Amino acid sequence: MPATVSDLLALFDITDEGEGRYRGPQPNTQWQRLFGGQVLAQSLYAAMLSVPGERLPHSVHGYFMRPGVNTVAPTFNVTALRDGGSFSTRSVSTMQEDQNIFLAVASFQGPEEGLTHTAEQPTDVTSPEDSPLLAQVLEAQFGHPMPMLSEWDALEVRLASGPQSSPQGPRMRAWVKTQAPLPDDPRVHIAVMAYLSDITLLSVAVAQHEVELLSPEVMMASLDHAMWFHRPFRADEWLLYDMVSPSASGARGYCQGRLFQDGHVVASAVQEGLIRIQS
Amino acid sequence: MPATVSDLLALFDITDEGEGRYRGPQPNTQWQRLFGGQVLAQSLYAAMLSVPGERLPHSVHGYFMRPGVNTVAPTFNVTALRDGGSFSTRSVSTMQEDQNIFLAVASFQGPEEGLTHTAEQPTDVTSPEDSPLLAQVLEAQFGHPMPMLSEWDALEVRLASGPQSSPQGPRMRAWVKTQAPLPDDPRVHIAVMAYLSDITLLSVAVAQHEVELLSPEVMMASLDHAMWFHRPFRADEWLLYDMVSPSASGARGYCQGRLFQDGHVVASAVQEGLIRIQS
Repeated sequence: MPATVSDLLALFDITDEGEGRYRGPQPNTQWQRLFGGQVLAQSLYAAMLSVPGERLPHSVHGYFMRPGVNTVAPTFNVTALRDGGSFSTRSVSTMQEDQNIFLAVASFQGPEEGLTHTAEQPTDVTSPEDSPLLAQVLEAQFGHPMPMLSEWDALEVRLASGPQSSPQGPRMRAWVKTQAPLPDDPRVHIAVMAYLSDITLLSVAVAQHEVELLSPEVMMASLDHAMWFHRPFRADEWLLYDMVSPSASGARGYCQGRLFQDGHVVASAVQEGLIRIQS
Repeated sequence: MPATVSDLLALFDITDEGEGRYRGPQPNTQWQRLFGGQVLAQSLYAAMLSVPGERLPHSVHGYFMRPGVNTVAPTFNVTALRDGGSFSTRSVSTMQEDQNIFLAVASFQGPEEGLTHTAEQPTDVTSPEDSPLLAQVLEAQFGHPMPMLSEWDALEVRLASGPQSSPQGPRMRAWVKTQAPLPDDPRVHIAVMAYLSDITLLSVAVAQHEVELLSPEVMMASLDHAMWFHRPFRADEWLLYDMVSPSASGARGYCQGRLFQDGHVVASAVQEGLIRIQS
């Protein structure tokens, strides 16, 4: 539960122990399992520490293999798969004791020019100032406070529209940014983007079904999480997160998100999660 | 160049050499580099051979690390990362001699029930019967035959609409299926789906720009390719491939595709590619 932006940044106090081995801080959470966005963000940050110079991640693909626990500091085993003329590739095996809880591959590139285009930032949403806090919406909807939401207190999350039906599947839009400014290092903004992209995305898969999102009967667990970082952005300024769930089937929900800032799509996220309804 | 469906199926004559090592047939292509869809499909098929019983892939994430060549039979080194109660996870390192050309991770699951929904299959397209062959459209557009398209002669590809602008970025729709029936084994249909999903997807990123798609000035190379298999389908019956490119920047094009059959989204694909314009 990073309660402040300082707590959030402390996730990235990752120590280089040599030979591709990095150690993270002990997780601080009241959740039974670690938040997937935290595992993704820390793993990606460890990979970034292994890539010298100006190459930054343009994509990361990760699988959640086992639930993370809050009693063991994670170790990130980074393998340099390739350092080519333009791109570097890294794999990260995230371990707690001898358990591989997460496996990711990420690709890095230096600045390069080329063709440019962008999807249009949606305008049929309320402004951040006029959008309610997501926590307030959920508490009103379910009629009781939701202590689990304090996990994300370092972020300000406002509901910009929905959930609603769309031809592309259930859709929801949220405004997201950190509660306080971040340092300028673009690696921090990328890691925070990875962290925040895991919030609310999978919930879009259940939002239009007759189940209570946070009830004990609903078991949700991320299976994978992929991201693409299209352009520079700041995670401490408003991002519009446009989320849609094109499919649910086989006890799996599939969700896609696009993150917009200043009229450009700056990042994309795709996630599939296991969704079991126990009755 | 799988000229027939038999040639296409021959890609999956993959030999189990023991200890997680699988060997594929010598690639048959006139291209300088191997077709990415072939590498993805063979790698995924090798992983499927390592997973017993009724568990089938529901997702695969792969990175193209180096260009494949047509002079060396590929070896697929499959690692069993996890066999849990419901899911199995495999990594595949695809090698040509000592070069790792492709790295993928795939997840497998047996049949399971749960929530269901689907994006709507687009209806603002021409029927397969009324849609022109993609090869004819491209030859008419560029004014000369395109021998490179013979790589995909095992498939029938028809242009259902576009390329056109959309709020989500440049968009194109195609009808795709194999030229002849496939055996019923669902693993074959999944592998063929992986193969065909790589056709035309990345081209959507350049379709609205002032460049000639197949000219020597345009260098395109797949960076990654991820797929999700949502529902059972047949790759020898018409699939509507709805493709969009939400972003191009940093010499990279980002494309998403949804494959529909009988009114349901049956698979999704996401790909990023390097696009360099040499002038």
